[in-house]
Amino acid sequence: MAKIARLQLSDGSVRYARYRGDGTFELIEGDVFDEWLPTGQVVSGDQVRLLAPVSPPNIIAIGLNYRRHAQESGMALPERPVIFLKATTAVCGPEDSIVLPKIAPNEVDYECELAIIIGKKARHVSEEEALDYVWGYTCSNDVSARDCQLRLDAQWARAKSFDTFAPLGPWVETEIKDPDNLAIRTILNGQVMQDSNTNDMIFSCRELVSFISQCMTLLPGTVIMTGTPSGVGFARKPPVFLRPGDVVEIEIEGIGTLRNQVVAEA
Amino acid sequence: MAKIARLQLSDGSVRYARYRGDGTFELIEGDVFDEWLPTGQVVSGDQVRLLAPVSPPNIIAIGLNYRRHAQESGMALPERPVIFLKATTAVCGPEDSIVLPKIAPNEVDYECELAIIIGKKARHVSEEEALDYVWGYTCSNDVSARDCQLRLDAQWARAKSFDTFAPLGPWVETEIKDPDNLAIRTILNGQVMQDSNTNDMIFSCRELVSFISQCMTLLPGTVIMTGTPSGVGFARKPPVFLRPGDVVEIEIEGIGTLRNQVVAEA
Repeated sequence: MAKIARLQLSDGSVRYARYRGDGTFELIEGDVFDEWLPTGQVVSGDQVRLLAPVSPPNIIAIGLNYRRHAQESGMALPERPVIFLKATTAVCGPEDSIVLPKIAPNEVDYECELAIIIGKKARHVSEEEALDYVWGYTCSNDVSARDCQLRLDAQWARAKSFDTFAPLGPWVETEIKDPDNLAIRTILNGQVMQDSNTNDMIFSCRELVSFISQCMTLLPGTVIMTGTPSGVGFARKPPVFLRPGDVVEIEIEGIGTLRNQVVAEA
Repeated sequence: MAKIARLQLSDGSVRYARYRGDGTFELIEGDVFDEWLPTGQVVSGDQVRLLAPVSPPNIIAIGLNYRRHAQESGMALPERPVIFLKATTAVCGPEDSIVLPKIAPNEVDYECELAIIIGKKARHVSEEEALDYVWGYTCSNDVSARDCQLRLDAQWARAKSFDTFAPLGPWVETEIKDPDNLAIRTILNGQVMQDSNTNDMIFSCRELVSFISQCMTLLPGTVIMTGTPSGVGFARKPPVFLRPGDVVEIEIEGIGTLRNQVVAEA
């Protein structure tokens, strides 16, 4: 297993590193998407800041891609992947807070998602070869202001693009064998809210990469958020929305845990 | 008037330059969004390739922002700007062709739009100060696969994000006094298809920049496509869609003409 993290060191520089599993990271050099080498230089996790593992050129997200979530949302199963985009400025890292925006603070919801990170430029790739273009996988939270998404706006883009609404991390696992069979959970303040497996996805990772590559060029670093399972806050009775002080954890088997605090916008 | 273009020189290098109005460009140096200086080095337009004037971190687009286009689309006037996103990989320049994608070649439509280019990081800016954050304005075409947008997909993102579906150019005019009073037209194969003025916009440029900045950080180079006037192809009887060999021109008063050929995907 290779867990590749992006770190800010104490001198302010930003470097990629391999997580060693013991709270320490070994810095690497070279092209992180292609050939890289360990440097032998080891830093302790408490001396660095973990950043989002990539600065994506695009964030492509998939709606209604888990059977049970489509049901809880009252939507028919889609015939093809439901594609939407999140602004790249929404990215935040595993040590950042999710900020409830002043103009839409009341119905902000979590969505745990397996995020595919593209490693090689992909255009018109077949399902068979699609995973060859994937660099690895990380945990993501498709944070959504449900008032904007479901009542105020005709399109989902704004609801899902507020600053900090795309937490990514803690690192990219580059050696996942089968991305379509991973346990995935959201834990809110210690309580399990979503608890599923990527094998409930309607469109598999290879189907998604292939389909999207028929539409647009996927550049290295592109993030594909693959949809969320059932258990989101707005579909609960009564609904559950994020509040200042909350802690949201997205946990994916074989990758790790992305943990973000929630704060009100200053 | 300062028309700032991005050029690829014959040696392959990419430079910003000021258009001199006579078919020649003077290269500039410095920070194009802030302080730059002319270099005295002049190149002829026929020795360079005009590129899209920016590589945007995000493309934010506005739906239904002209009164008469909302009417022709059969939609109510929006209460707030209808925000959607186009993939940054959709950008192409004034010397590129619009490519009709293999998987959706039949209902590709034009939309002339005034594009705002952000010059300074903007977050929570008021309407009064909003235009201080604008670098300038260019012509854009919000190319849209109507079959995807209106029948196949639940969201507009895919329909508007195929490669080449965001032509920008030919340059950025940085000294527009009033962006909300500019003649704007689409000319298809010599025939005027859209003919309006940005004074028909429901939300003005300063309202759009301010509103979007309440949601997300606008970084330098961000493109805001401000919506299209009436006269789009799908609303005509019979409908008009782009075909290989067509030439689409987007003409905006005080800026210039963005001209793209249409080709089928190879």
